[in-house]
Amino acid sequence: MKVAIQGIKGSYHHQVTNLLYEKADLLECSTFDQVAQAVASGVVDKAVMAIGNSIAGSILPNYTLIRQNQIYITAEYYLDISHQLMALPGQKIEDIKEVQSHPMALLQCRNYFQGYPEVKLVETNDTAAAAYRIHRDGKKGVAAIASDTAAQLYELDIIASDLQDVANNSTRFVVVEREPNYVDDANKATINFTTSHEPGTLARILTIFGAQRINLSKIQSIPVIEKPFVFSFVADLELEDLEQFLKAKQQIRPYVEQLDILGIYKNASL
Amino acid sequence: MKVAIQGIKGSYHHQVTNLLYEKADLLECSTFDQVAQAVASGVVDKAVMAIGNSIAGSILPNYTLIRQNQIYITAEYYLDISHQLMALPGQKIEDIKEVQSHPMALLQCRNYFQGYPEVKLVETNDTAAAAYRIHRDGKKGVAAIASDTAAQLYELDIIASDLQDVANNSTRFVVVEREPNYVDDANKATINFTTSHEPGTLARILTIFGAQRINLSKIQSIPVIEKPFVFSFVADLELEDLEQFLKAKQQIRPYVEQLDILGIYKNASL
Repeated sequence: MKVAIQGIKGSYHHQVTNLLYEKADLLECSTFDQVAQAVASGVVDKAVMAIGNSIAGSILPNYTLIRQNQIYITAEYYLDISHQLMALPGQKIEDIKEVQSHPMALLQCRNYFQGYPEVKLVETNDTAAAAYRIHRDGKKGVAAIASDTAAQLYELDIIASDLQDVANNSTRFVVVEREPNYVDDANKATINFTTSHEPGTLARILTIFGAQRINLSKIQSIPVIEKPFVFSFVADLELEDLEQFLKAKQQIRPYVEQLDILGIYKNASL
Repeated sequence: MKVAIQGIKGSYHHQVTNLLYEKADLLECSTFDQVAQAVASGVVDKAVMAIGNSIAGSILPNYTLIRQNQIYITAEYYLDISHQLMALPGQKIEDIKEVQSHPMALLQCRNYFQGYPEVKLVETNDTAAAAYRIHRDGKKGVAAIASDTAAQLYELDIIASDLQDVANNSTRFVVVEREPNYVDDANKATINFTTSHEPGTLARILTIFGAQRINLSKIQSIPVIEKPFVFSFVADLELEDLEQFLKAKQQIRPYVEQLDILGIYKNASL
């Protein structure tokens, strides 16, 4: 099975891929754009994509990529992220002048580095790439924030553990495929819809969901920049059964201008 | 009037402060935490705080800071952000090895720098601080992404203009104060409420708002990490008059576990 990820081996995307699939053949992509295109074009069977985290919220552009590339969420996975600080063997925290990682990881470890104001924080495309380059170039004085897997893979020493600000730093990943293949016990749907800017329209839509015993586990409005009076919403729905969802989908038609089902899959949250 | 901002002179917070208030006495804070505390403790009269932008969405932690410090939104302002690349006079884009800025600014200019893969992107606490240090230390080979104001203030040359990926890169700022002082023509409210995880509860709340002709211009669910079955929502409400809002506020009581009014102010959006 061929799976596209954003980043290289040792990234959190790689870690999730390993947990979900045995012996996947990885396609390492440098951007989420490339990941989505690899799925849409059929170059890979699936992709694993981060879609949000418990600190910063949703990664809104990835919902847009899924919609625009007409690909589908077929599964979800929540990973508790533990950020490790790693450097060449023998390096100590006092030796470190510069720390490299993905902007999101740097953000999640901000409190830790307030204790080290002299350390320069440098952005890289992904966490594992920072670790890889320290290994490849034998860079002293530089550390990376990345996963345990990256430390092992690139033979670096972990010089500080669990750097993230909040203990409960969970990232939600989704599996995306070219077809909306859904499993028999699917009980969650992600939808994107737009409504006119009319008081009560969203309430009508949510009332229809409520009547079908469909619960919202997430809703987020996204301003549609080009159309100031149109609102776009991303919502995650928890379904008791698929029939109810299909019924609700019909009933909300009069109130939505556009409706895209981004995927129907099995709920992996608590 | 004393106004707290995150960042130093020349930051976008400073730019907004200048647009809103003549001759404000600035308190430069290095974190949003300090900004909120300065307002809560009465050290300043007001603060100007970024609360979200059209690309990355809401800055969720700032809503939490407002709620926890029991301070209030009293006004909002939308600024179209134009990011400029600036360096010491005489430097050209070919001379630049490293670009420093705030992580959000780096993120918003990501496409631009894909054309310059050799350039190292380095995070700083705020955009203006990067510009200031280039000026202070006479740093050659280093550029900052910051505002026009920062270039003028720190005597740097703009070597590339409007670097942001999306032309329409608008950031929403709010003014926060210790008391919920609201203006006579206030027509927008920001609220934070929690509901039980019961299908249809949010629909009931929004139906009440709809019946009072209150429109939602924004809604975002925030998972409450410690309480998996409780959901927290931040919503912006567009009001026709305050009476309707107070009526709706009474009517939703049975459906909310907690309700905080983060501010009532004048709508500044289109």
